[in-house]
Amino acid sequence: MSEKKLFLIPATLGDTIVTQVIPSYNLEIIQGLDHFVVEELKTARRFLILCGYKTDLNSVRFYTLNEHTQDEEIPFIFADSGLSDLGLISEAGVPGVADPGAMLVEAAYRLRIKVIPLSGPSSLILALMASGLNGQNFAFNGYLPVKSPERSVRIRFYEKRSETEHQAQMFIEAPYRNNQLIEALLGNLN
Amino acid sequence: MSEKKLFLIPATLGDTIVTQVIPSYNLEIIQGLDHFVVEELKTARRFLILCGYKTDLNSVRFYTLNEHTQDEEIPFIFADSGLSDLGLISEAGVPGVADPGAMLVEAAYRLRIKVIPLSGPSSLILALMASGLNGQNFAFNGYLPVKSPERSVRIRFYEKRSETEHQAQMFIEAPYRNNQLIEALLGNLN
Repeated sequence: MSEKKLFLIPATLGDTIVTQVIPSYNLEIIQGLDHFVVEELKTARRFLILCGYKTDLNSVRFYTLNEHTQDEEIPFIFADSGLSDLGLISEAGVPGVADPGAMLVEAAYRLRIKVIPLSGPSSLILALMASGLNGQNFAFNGYLPVKSPERSVRIRFYEKRSETEHQAQMFIEAPYRNNQLIEALLGNLN
Repeated sequence: MSEKKLFLIPATLGDTIVTQVIPSYNLEIIQGLDHFVVEELKTARRFLILCGYKTDLNSVRFYTLNEHTQDEEIPFIFADSGLSDLGLISEAGVPGVADPGAMLVEAAYRLRIKVIPLSGPSSLILALMASGLNGQNFAFNGYLPVKSPERSVRIRFYEKRSETEHQAQMFIEAPYRNNQLIEALLGNLN
């Protein structure tokens, strides 16, 4: 195992107050880093400032990891950062869940770099806690198809699975499409 | 909606340092409560002390909610606590996920009591973040059967599902049975 570490750093969304959802320990870890892998540069810089990050951002090395990142860019990130520890920050919430961060984590293991996930807010877990649904058996299925008949077919598929396996089914949706999704659920579910 | 609130309070496990995984905001919320629904009284009292809880524990009202709790005990908890806000603390991690807390949450909605999940450590999410597996599509399946052939059948069932649906499969196991589980996985998976 090398000495180099990859910290997985949960981030806030929008105007959320950092101390409301992020442990103070994470802020200490962030202070000690000057190499970050980020999904979107602008929001990551904003998040670091909200965290009270003291290093001049112009002297910090940022690497971008998003849906456009090619596999071959990953080894470059590890090589270019040398012996420095890396912090992975996703667009909002915990890195590696519903974002491309898993690519970096998988590569870190192959290079025998220690991966350290930090505790923080996950919208999926907060929604599941607050749902009153079955937290002993659940699935997160990402986005439903936007158009029918594909959308209707998938909704009925997941309804059947929740009935036969008593498994709670979770999805993600863009805020501006929530009402359409609820209408589609009302129109398709028993 | 009534004024009464139910806070879902994530807890630490064993000797974890509270500030390492719990946001400072949660500690403020805890200070303001004196009615708690807990999975196990002894560990909940210990957790409150670790959080720097200032109220005399002898003057605090505790209700137990665990796998032995009957459905009819839930209305008693809400009635007995009157207008006071309630804090739900599970044995470790976030309440309502892989514990009986969902019963209380569901009942709170029926009584139009506001449910507020607080951010905190979830072993499932930390494991998923650190796994490098598919965080866009995953399932948590609780415990596998302890004995074969049931156990082998389930392992092959989940392997097939992970192949056909590209869905990461998560399980929970007691620490002292981890080695047996890994042997069962090695013996059954392709």
